[in-house]
Amino acid sequence: MSSRNIQVEPMRRLAVEDQAVEIVERKGVGHPDSICDGVAEHVSEALAREYLDRVGTVLHYNTDETQLIAGSTAPAFGGGEVTTPIRLLIVGRATREYDGTTIPTETIALKAAREYLGTQIPELDFGSDIVVDVELGEGSGDLREVFGESGRQIPMANDTSFGVGHAPLTETERIVRSTERRLNTEYASDHPEVGTDIKVMGKREGDRIDVTVAAAMIDAHLEDMAAYRTSVREMREYVHELARELTDRSVTVHVNTADDYEEGAIYLTTTGTSAEQGDDGSVGRGNRANGLITPNRSMSMEATSGKNPVNHIGKIYNLLSTEIADRVVTEVDGIREIRIRLLSQIGQPIDHPHVADGAVVTESDVSLDEIEADITAIIDEELANITALTERVIAGELATF
Amino acid sequence: MSSRNIQVEPMRRLAVEDQAVEIVERKGVGHPDSICDGVAEHVSEALAREYLDRVGTVLHYNTDETQLIAGSTAPAFGGGEVTTPIRLLIVGRATREYDGTTIPTETIALKAAREYLGTQIPELDFGSDIVVDVELGEGSGDLREVFGESGRQIPMANDTSFGVGHAPLTETERIVRSTERRLNTEYASDHPEVGTDIKVMGKREGDRIDVTVAAAMIDAHLEDMAAYRTSVREMREYVHELARELTDRSVTVHVNTADDYEEGAIYLTTTGTSAEQGDDGSVGRGNRANGLITPNRSMSMEATSGKNPVNHIGKIYNLLSTEIADRVVTEVDGIREIRIRLLSQIGQPIDHPHVADGAVVTESDVSLDEIEADITAIIDEELANITALTERVIAGELATF
Amino acid sequence: MSSRNIQVEPMRRLAVEDQAVEIVERKGVGHPDSICDGVAEHVSEALAREYLDRVGTVLHYNTDETQLIAGSTAPAFGGGEVTTPIRLLIVGRATREYDGTTIPTETIALKAAREYLGTQIPELDFGSDIVVDVELGEGSGDLREVFGESGRQIPMANDTSFGVGHAPLTETERIVRSTERRLNTEYASDHPEVGTDIKVMGKREGDRIDVTVAAAMIDAHLEDMAAYRTSVREMREYVHELARELTDRSVTVHVNTADDYEEGAIYLTTTGTSAEQGDDGSVGRGNRANGLITPNRSMSMEATSGKNPVNHIGKIYNLLSTEIADRVVTEVDGIREIRIRLLSQIGQPIDHPHVADGAVVTESDVSLDEIEADITAIIDEELANITALTERVIAGELATF
Amino acid sequence: MSSRNIQVEPMRRLAVEDQAVEIVERKGVGHPDSICDGVAEHVSEALAREYLDRVGTVLHYNTDETQLIAGSTAPAFGGGEVTTPIRLLIVGRATREYDGTTIPTETIALKAAREYLGTQIPELDFGSDIVVDVELGEGSGDLREVFGESGRQIPMANDTSFGVGHAPLTETERIVRSTERRLNTEYASDHPEVGTDIKVMGKREGDRIDVTVAAAMIDAHLEDMAAYRTSVREMREYVHELARELTDRSVTVHVNTADDYEEGAIYLTTTGTSAEQGDDGSVGRGNRANGLITPNRSMSMEATSGKNPVNHIGKIYNLLSTEIADRVVTEVDGIREIRIRLLSQIGQPIDHPHVADGAVVTESDVSLDEIEADITAIIDEELANITALTERVIAGELATF
Repeated sequence: MSSRNIQVEPMRRLAVEDQAVEIVERKGVGHPDSICDGVAEHVSEALAREYLDRVGTVLHYNTDETQLIAGSTAPAFGGGEVTTPIRLLIVGRATREYDGTTIPTETIALKAAREYLGTQIPELDFGSDIVVDVELGEGSGDLREVFGESGRQIPMANDTSFGVGHAPLTETERIVRSTERRLNTEYASDHPEVGTDIKVMGKREGDRIDVTVAAAMIDAHLEDMAAYRTSVREMREYVHELARELTDRSVTVHVNTADDYEEGAIYLTTTGTSAEQGDDGSVGRGNRANGLITPNRSMSMEATSGKNPVNHIGKIYNLLSTEIADRVVTEVDGIREIRIRLLSQIGQPIDHPHVADGAVVTESDVSLDEIEADITAIIDEELANITALTERVIAGELATF
Repeated sequence: MSSRNIQVEPMRRLAVEDQAVEIVERKGVGHPDSICDGVAEHVSEALAREYLDRVGTVLHYNTDETQLIAGSTAPAFGGGEVTTPIRLLIVGRATREYDGTTIPTETIALKAAREYLGTQIPELDFGSDIVVDVELGEGSGDLREVFGESGRQIPMANDTSFGVGHAPLTETERIVRSTERRLNTEYASDHPEVGTDIKVMGKREGDRIDVTVAAAMIDAHLEDMAAYRTSVREMREYVHELARELTDRSVTVHVNTADDYEEGAIYLTTTGTSAEQGDDGSVGRGNRANGLITPNRSMSMEATSGKNPVNHIGKIYNLLSTEIADRVVTEVDGIREIRIRLLSQIGQPIDHPHVADGAVVTESDVSLDEIEADITAIIDEELANITALTERVIAGELATF
Repeated sequence: MSSRNIQVEPMRRLAVEDQAVEIVERKGVGHPDSICDGVAEHVSEALAREYLDRVGTVLHYNTDETQLIAGSTAPAFGGGEVTTPIRLLIVGRATREYDGTTIPTETIALKAAREYLGTQIPELDFGSDIVVDVELGEGSGDLREVFGESGRQIPMANDTSFGVGHAPLTETERIVRSTERRLNTEYASDHPEVGTDIKVMGKREGDRIDVTVAAAMIDAHLEDMAAYRTSVREMREYVHELARELTDRSVTVHVNTADDYEEGAIYLTTTGTSAEQGDDGSVGRGNRANGLITPNRSMSMEATSGKNPVNHIGKIYNLLSTEIADRVVTEVDGIREIRIRLLSQIGQPIDHPHVADGAVVTESDVSLDEIEADITAIIDEELANITALTERVIAGELATF
Repeated sequence: MSSRNIQVEPMRRLAVEDQAVEIVERKGVGHPDSICDGVAEHVSEALAREYLDRVGTVLHYNTDETQLIAGSTAPAFGGGEVTTPIRLLIVGRATREYDGTTIPTETIALKAAREYLGTQIPELDFGSDIVVDVELGEGSGDLREVFGESGRQIPMANDTSFGVGHAPLTETERIVRSTERRLNTEYASDHPEVGTDIKVMGKREGDRIDVTVAAAMIDAHLEDMAAYRTSVREMREYVHELARELTDRSVTVHVNTADDYEEGAIYLTTTGTSAEQGDDGSVGRGNRANGLITPNRSMSMEATSGKNPVNHIGKIYNLLSTEIADRVVTEVDGIREIRIRLLSQIGQPIDHPHVADGAVVTESDVSLDEIEADITAIIDEELANITALTERVIAGELATF
């Protein structure tokens, strides 16, 4: 048995799926906060890869303070225009000099941001609809040294912090997540009028689920109000269909409920994101590491996106606890819900958290004793293998928001 | 009885005070995230007051995207210096024109920021240690109209969002909050070497409470390493004393545990905040509306600081739910813990939430039936009186972080 | 005869061509000051055209405060890289609203800058080697009204200012100008190693002309020091040849004289402009409207580039006086040198300057009396036709630096 | 006799005082361009002094790219307000590290700017009426080494450049300069309604001198239009009186001629500078080193303010040539006008210019032969003593604009 401080205990509350009221939210990839998360994380991956290429080790950096300042537009059926550009400022720290090698951190960041935006938010014309700048300082002396050691060693935690993960997702959570994901991929490929800024709110009271979608519609692909109304109706039907695949509960779908057709007050945009019209954004203000905002569940305030995946313990533990929870419910039967919490101690190896704590709601016919050892073993194994997670983050294999 | 949708139900879990593991955190007033929260909220109050003075109603604004870009310093016993200034950028939206009156929003914001920093973080020489700039755009047309109506009416919710509050605080929570508050006031007045950036982490396992304090020490008031060590030791004793007033559990206090005296690697600063050395900050990334980060409790992701207190429902409901929870435990006996959640519906009057939901852990000898009516009545009354909360926020009477 | 106050008089000094010492300078298109001039002027043209398209008249704007903040690079034979991007900030004023029409001034400016840089300084990767942002405020109320009148009328001078032009160019001036122009076009097309930042200084003492060229060489097209030296030598020969086409005086050419081959201190760059390595720039600090800096001649301090060509009198009079001087020496025989000065009076029609003043050095066998009427007639005609100049500026037909 | 290449020759033109038309301009200390000049030069002096204090030698820096972005105000008799702050961005290069010592260049710059503005433009409330930020990069490697040598040696010229100076000033020049200087000191002390942004244009045709003053009036000190008109009238009388002390020619004075009392269009400001209302500014766009813009005279385009006074040859030679010209006309009789030009050669000692060239208009009864030796001796002596000029610049004893 390992030397790790792993505790598994019963949850002593109802599984979220069984609670009376549940609230879930997801901000889509084009939401101003998500744009910041996405750019920050993409920049982070690019920096990590360049550091590995150039000096063989990931140097200190964090790019998690990216800030978006909204622009303004004049939307119009058939195609409006951007009247004031959106500004995106990538803020953070990154080591520029190592052993005689200069790493062009700001250039790397700008290229990564341009690439990300070009792929994910292609409606924004880079350099005119959105201006991206970067200000990467250098960290304090202490921080710069952290990674001076050989990459083989287990890094030390940079802070006293914690991460938390849950599994499985509830029906409402899966509906909310799928709604945004599928609208922004499958559905959008046939419906170019759907912007990337899709915000989905799920509320369940008992067995009634309300799904509320706020979707920024793109003016160039809508010729008039009738087309807009048709598009909203089709989206509602699509989401309803989608939800019914995921639940037997009763589902009601609302799309752009704040619209007032009489007044002509509708959610029409030129670029498909509310960033064009006064909605600012920043990293870490939106979705948690599992892609959702879940007030029924324990959450960490840590911004996961943009953080260094080598020793930033808040990032690593949030991602790892989610991975562990997923793996436990996949491999161990009889679990209705599990929550994994990992608490670090500053300066200690990250594979030895201060405490790794699993709280479990078992199925009614299962006792925790029967499965505790299996759960503990998985937690232990995942912690032993913690640096693999860093590699997957650098490779861009893990979503952070 | 009111027409409000108020639900009170049992919590079906252990009170946080009775759970096996509890984690609590508070970022002190000089933490980079808190500096942003504080400035954003102070700017918000100033704008609201000026709007009332000049046009008789609070116009649309939000200043909750304030961003801090860290500087650098060369700390030295006896007094170091700032080598690169901290930048603070106040970002948001605020209406500049109303009925022929121009409101100098940016000037108001700058003055409010200067005033706040001068009072709260006086070690920062305004304009050279910290450069404050502001970029307040104007919101979209729709948003600008929201407050065009008479101030008498109940505003409509600007979003589908929710707020959550808890009461009473646990012992660990009270210790964490008091530690930061008293170090930054009572203790600091006798110990000028204590900076404003005090981060407190509390961890309770069963009946053992660990309090970990990371306090930025100010070099000008410490002549050498011996003085530093003495100051750390005294702080530890002070916090220990303080904690014992608040609990009978066993308490261990750690102060600046990452220090390495041999290496001379200590938490010495010139300005008393880690913002001077590479730690960036932004609004809404730190403490929740009740001043704490509490992963054991349901939390909202909403940034409370800097939001318009008239119709920004995330702000209002977070503050109000906390107020309600506090009042319930003060006035109603037999409650071990209560959580209040308020869920809004966009476009509906804010005094009629979609659902107001109280979840209660009663004392073992009390049944919820006995007290449910009292709880419901308080919730109803507070909702009816919701605009009073807006006034208190504008008057600066409510803490938001 | 017209009512204009036109005075023609003898110059009472030697023609510059006959003076003992002459100094002339030209900053090439890739010099940081010229980059600012070029972007500012291209933005100006784009704004003027958009105003005409959208509202039928050119509204108030000036974009002549564009500022370049240098980056840093790590040049290396075979190809280096940009380590800190260059920043270009387009600053100025431009009217955004007119009669219910919104003109997206900042978007127009960004697109024009991107286009200009892509064409003229293609080595700079837009958005990563150079970050372009824009801050166009709105002018004061008075200024905004200036163009409220019909476009047919002659605009009123916006200031008390003057312009000055000279003709013909001296041999040294022609050599300096041709050197930069031909190196940056004809020669560069065969020599990709020659950057756009070519600064040429000409000095004539009596009949000896020294041409000093400082040319930023591009590392990607030079494999080693030998290649660099060869390229410098070839350039020197090319310039020498070119100069001999333009003069019979003795010519010495120096290229990159500050190089120290022993020390490896050479003018090697990654992007072909010194903006990459610490040389900032701004509008109006470099070449005058005739493309040269000519301390032997009367010069105006006015920044010509970026100014509104409708009523900015400094711009108009500098360009027009140069045009007049050119036309006079083309059409009137017997002139060794002419200087035209146009002095405006604020608030008066721009075709009626306070004084239009021609100072002439005639050929030794010609008296001013013989040609004065011809000169006066040309000045008068050009002033009568002044609005044609505005149109040519908007069409991009006139160089401003 | 020295080894310097000094040439003295006749001018072969009329002295400016004797030419038919003369134009002269001066932008007052509160003009946006002058604000930039003043801040840049004050920052330069502060940096030089700090370098000397900390490392014993002046390291490489240039702060001559300072840029002002205008704000907006709502002026009103009795006192208006700033509605958008003015932004001042100090841009340049300055060495931050030398031999293990960190020099806090940005902090030094910010403090110097604050001090200068507080003294010279006290109407601007620092941090709310005007926001000052700084961006000082580091120069390229070569430049950084320039001053690595002992301070005793004569520095080498950093560029091929030239400076030019003239003496004596003409009557018109003296009137223009005195008008601004005395309005901004003696007169303003009794007339608080006079702002610092006073632009003076002098035009002489034969023996008629027109002095045109555009003075920004401060609203807080003017209760109504009558007071404004009285103030304008008094200023006109004061300037007329002043001019008559300096000339026997006929003088006409115009003050704020663009005012239209009927329309209420007057030059009323809140802060006394047009920077408050849309007029941007930058270094080197206004007055030349002698405080004037003099199209009748040879001028250098070099920005003198903000440049390093140790090896920036453009700055040194402009200041020195003016000093030499002044000294020559003071000490040598019989000179009606002298122009001194100093042309550098990059990489050569600055006390040995490529050519030092004096052009002289003698009094009618004096031949150049009689005084040439005296002139040459003064030029030679001043060049030999060139480093004394650097010290005077650092001490703030020489005006640069």
